[in-house]
Amino acid sequence: RINSQRLWDSLMEMGEIGGTEKGGCNRLAGTDLDKQARDLFCAWCEATGCEISIDKFGNIFAKRPGINNELPSVATGSHLDTQPTGGKFDGVFGVLSGVEVLRTLHENNITTPTPIEVSVWTNEEGSRFQPAMQGSGVYVGRFDLQEELDKTDVNGLRLGDELARIGYLGEEELGSRNIGAFFEAHIEQGPILEDEEKRIGVVRLGQGIRWYNVEIQGQESHSGTTPMHLRKDAMVATGKIVAEIESLANRYDNGLGTVGFMQVYPNSRNTIPGNVKFSADLRNPNPDVLATMHEEFVAYCDSVAKERNLEITVDNFWYFAPVEFNASDDVKAATENLGYSHMDIYAGAGHDACYMADLVPAGMIFTPCENGISHNEIEYSSPEQCADGANVLLHTMLTASKR
Amino acid sequence: RINSQRLWDSLMEMGEIGGTEKGGCNRLAGTDLDKQARDLFCAWCEATGCEISIDKFGNIFAKRPGINNELPSVATGSHLDTQPTGGKFDGVFGVLSGVEVLRTLHENNITTPTPIEVSVWTNEEGSRFQPAMQGSGVYVGRFDLQEELDKTDVNGLRLGDELARIGYLGEEELGSRNIGAFFEAHIEQGPILEDEEKRIGVVRLGQGIRWYNVEIQGQESHSGTTPMHLRKDAMVATGKIVAEIESLANRYDNGLGTVGFMQVYPNSRNTIPGNVKFSADLRNPNPDVLATMHEEFVAYCDSVAKERNLEITVDNFWYFAPVEFNASDDVKAATENLGYSHMDIYAGAGHDACYMADLVPAGMIFTPCENGISHNEIEYSSPEQCADGANVLLHTMLTASKR
Ligand SMILES: NC(=O)NCCC(=O)O
Ligand SMILES: NC(=O)NCCC(=O)O
Repeated sequence: RINSQRLWDSLMEMGEIGGTEKGGCNRLAGTDLDKQARDLFCAWCEATGCEISIDKFGNIFAKRPGINNELPSVATGSHLDTQPTGGKFDGVFGVLSGVEVLRTLHENNITTPTPIEVSVWTNEEGSRFQPAMQGSGVYVGRFDLQEELDKTDVNGLRLGDELARIGYLGEEELGSRNIGAFFEAHIEQGPILEDEEKRIGVVRLGQGIRWYNVEIQGQESHSGTTPMHLRKDAMVATGKIVAEIESLANRYDNGLGTVGFMQVYPNSRNTIPGNVKFSADLRNPNPDVLATMHEEFVAYCDSVAKERNLEITVDNFWYFAPVEFNASDDVKAATENLGYSHMDIYAGAGHDACYMADLVPAGMIFTPCENGISHNEIEYSSPEQCADGANVLLHTMLTASKR
Repeated sequence: RINSQRLWDSLMEMGEIGGTEKGGCNRLAGTDLDKQARDLFCAWCEATGCEISIDKFGNIFAKRPGINNELPSVATGSHLDTQPTGGKFDGVFGVLSGVEVLRTLHENNITTPTPIEVSVWTNEEGSRFQPAMQGSGVYVGRFDLQEELDKTDVNGLRLGDELARIGYLGEEELGSRNIGAFFEAHIEQGPILEDEEKRIGVVRLGQGIRWYNVEIQGQESHSGTTPMHLRKDAMVATGKIVAEIESLANRYDNGLGTVGFMQVYPNSRNTIPGNVKFSADLRNPNPDVLATMHEEFVAYCDSVAKERNLEITVDNFWYFAPVEFNASDDVKAATENLGYSHMDIYAGAGHDACYMADLVPAGMIFTPCENGISHNEIEYSSPEQCADGANVLLHTMLTASKR
């Protein structure tokens, strides 16, 4: 068994880096705070006898030798970056459960048949730079390394430069590690396990995600002198589309639709906005339904453009197809051995394990979180819930290493 | 007659301060660019023998002595600040028409019966600091001096500090000048004079304006894991209200409604926005209609709050009641004497003359602008149109001074 108190203390210590007044965490990818979190992770892993590698996208790998170091590692990992109004658990819980596995093996002098690895993936959140799961996506070859390093934040800062600046632009080639299986522990971030009173969610699927950059080009004009019928108001068109995204999502089983990001230009109260840029996020576990949602969304934007004589560009720059986890049975077996209640579940959020599933057998372990709330400073999981997930991770990895 | 070429050259020279690539001007109140524009104005006025005074809100007054300097001045003025995507004419045309009046008197060695004054009012635009017509509003006592000096921009910078920083926080008491009448020349900023092929608009009324700060408080949550029915999405509520403002305005004759400014929090694409702040701007020339629009707007926001279980605060922090210009006949007489075609018109925008009408007989002279477009970098008035307005101003002021 892992050490529940030690895991909790580490979560709390890590949570202080970028800690917010409301008890959450604001630690965006590539910032000084991200560096501090990474440094702490590396120090903790080195203390358990791991060797640290950093690849050309800033992904960190801590490797603990096994009996036969030619064999592929059994790996786990997640991310240390957070949302601007993030919690202390999303991502961090997965990374520190991995660290807790290392510590448990270390203090018990256990040498596993294969090496064990814990990774920290760059920019999983997709908040400062897009898309999400960027580090694991580049690792498995879904995205082009150079293109992703060249991505910029709203202030024009380049991710590659930011990684270099904080000392985490490494030398290792992407995708070059000898990994045999990948497991990720994560808080559910939704309300189902709590509602169903289950300790563990065996994740069978990661749902489909489509991310869009929408830009509406109208014409700036005076709010006090421009008659309504002569306006090309980019903001009203935006309002219509935002409201429609909700209706669209509600028309489909399990449909989700969100506008989380917006920039209004020139953002002056007596100038009719000439330009609005905003994000759209559509999700569904069924790829056919998501495709239909996509078509309806694009068609709606086109109809608004036509009706209002505006230019609207809809760039669906990221499509993440639903992924099945083919090593979930390993997670289920470990959960049952430990005697924890469990249920099958699908992941609403994207996770690094979703991309790692491209390369190796992969599985995810979900634990409940309070009221299903995540991407919020009040996100919370109890010490017991965290310990459950870390114990399942430990036993899943040990079994996989012996195989 | 004024010197058309000299007026045009001055407009172009002033337009270079904060000039944009698209030929417009971005010269927000209280910035370094505002200082440069003010310095240039002062230098130009001093060259015509004026004395410069600056009051405790940064309003500038250039006074040219007359025959009897105990008599109240005949004054004109407008503003040198612009929108972020402003033009070279809005406000500046009025100020430089005043300067052109001074120059014309100076070069012809004319001493008027009363003194003549040209003023530059602080922050007429209401873009960086709110409300609009702030300098003239403080001057006439509509707003409290200290409260307005304490206003901050989106970055938290205080207007009083910014005025001090650029050297324009003066010593003169507000409202203490001996002014007998106030006239303001301004581009129409709307399409009517052009449509009607009139050279001059005799402004009879300034329409009513209500400005709001709306804040919606929902709850941040994950875009991928939060079911639609469990959301408290501040952005969707915003979209509904933005769309409704358009419908509301369209329900009333001459109704206008605009959302020009918005801040989304935390502005991350996979976090459901927990907080959105935005402006609303409702206008109508009829105060009863504007009151009804106000009530419907507040009621709609309340209904959205109730329906969606969100907190919505609607702060109508500025109400500008429609104002009649009681010196418009002076403008009309001067226009007819010059033989220019003209029509009565009402002002869609607020102007400094609207507040000066509280204290003294006031009138406004409108000139056409291309396609009625203002608060846009492509705003344009021809040299001839500008000269027309300045000539009417000159003759209106001369007549008033003789009276
Ligand atoms: N786990 C998590 O919150 N990932 C962020 C990517 C997403 O938007 O689903
Ligand atoms: N003239 C002008 O554009 N004034 C700005 C104040 C308003 O919004 O009407």
